[in-house]
Amino acid sequence: MTRWAPGAAGRLHAAALELFLEQGFSTTTVPQIAERAGLTTRSFFRYFADKREVLFAGEDELPGVVEQIFQDADPALSPMEVIHTGLKTVVIPRVQQFREEFLIRRTIVHSDEGLQERELRKLAILHTAATAAFTRRGLSPLDANISGRLAVTVYDTTLDLWLTDDVSRPLDYILDNVVRALAHVASSTPVGSQT
Amino acid sequence: MTRWAPGAAGRLHAAALELFLEQGFSTTTVPQIAERAGLTTRSFFRYFADKREVLFAGEDELPGVVEQIFQDADPALSPMEVIHTGLKTVVIPRVQQFREEFLIRRTIVHSDEGLQERELRKLAILHTAATAAFTRRGLSPLDANISGRLAVTVYDTTLDLWLTDDVSRPLDYILDNVVRALAHVASSTPVGSQT
Repeated sequence: MTRWAPGAAGRLHAAALELFLEQGFSTTTVPQIAERAGLTTRSFFRYFADKREVLFAGEDELPGVVEQIFQDADPALSPMEVIHTGLKTVVIPRVQQFREEFLIRRTIVHSDEGLQERELRKLAILHTAATAAFTRRGLSPLDANISGRLAVTVYDTTLDLWLTDDVSRPLDYILDNVVRALAHVASSTPVGSQT
Repeated sequence: MTRWAPGAAGRLHAAALELFLEQGFSTTTVPQIAERAGLTTRSFFRYFADKREVLFAGEDELPGVVEQIFQDADPALSPMEVIHTGLKTVVIPRVQQFREEFLIRRTIVHSDEGLQERELRKLAILHTAATAAFTRRGLSPLDANISGRLAVTVYDTTLDLWLTDDVSRPLDYILDNVVRALAHVASSTPVGSQT
């Protein structure tokens, strides 16, 4: 069902998603997940702290992804260009072949209030990492904070539109639309005139 | 200690904040809060579902605040002007006299991972309400979604700067700075040129 990862961790991951979908997140137990994957409960805990963390297994990679975006970014790029280019060249190639898996994960996360709160914390971690990277790039604390928040806004809006789209449009097309809409909305105020 | 609200709910609220600060959120019990307020445990549960919800008691008012912002908003205003004017005329007057109380609340929320996740859900509720209001105002789904996110970004960044400021600056001065920085950062991309 899933192409997330090979090996035991990948099998546990696929088994957990299947069971969460079939019978709900709250009623699924770790022994059930292990059994479905043909592994022991002890094996499960070698890879995941608990059943919730199966859904957030990729989170450790986020700071590394953010770091790569900023390493690759031309020093002449504006903050929004860094965000736009980074998502296009670093993030999209990592996620675009996994639409079905992201969609399943989204369905499960939306089914449970605690998972939704946990998902929001993931985005807060991303905001913190992006803000730190923009600060190292020389932005003022306020501009770095705002840029970090816009990075999360663009990322999350783009992914969400991609997953909920009626017609299936390419991820980079949706990203371009989101960046354009953001610039348009955010600049539509007199006080925002560049000084 | 607090000027949040008069009566039993206000006393319970003040007692809870005192105890969370003194001995930590996780170790404080509902009976302790009730005792500190000179009330019974049963009284506590007339006002709050549990000790966590004491910190989110004002949340019910958020949709009403959002509604008022949009009722008052001149139809000619751009989305960012609605956000800017609404925060300035509706939100700031409601919060600016409570800096000390917000600061205490922030310290407590930051001390506990579960409270942080819950706080993020509060912001997600605000995003949903603002997005719906922008949609009713006639924005496209994408522009309404982005505008809702920017409303939360401006609100949360402004409050956070206000509470963590070394020098104490007026809330509306900080708001103006945040709106200006957001417009500046968001518009600094070629693809964002208004079309």
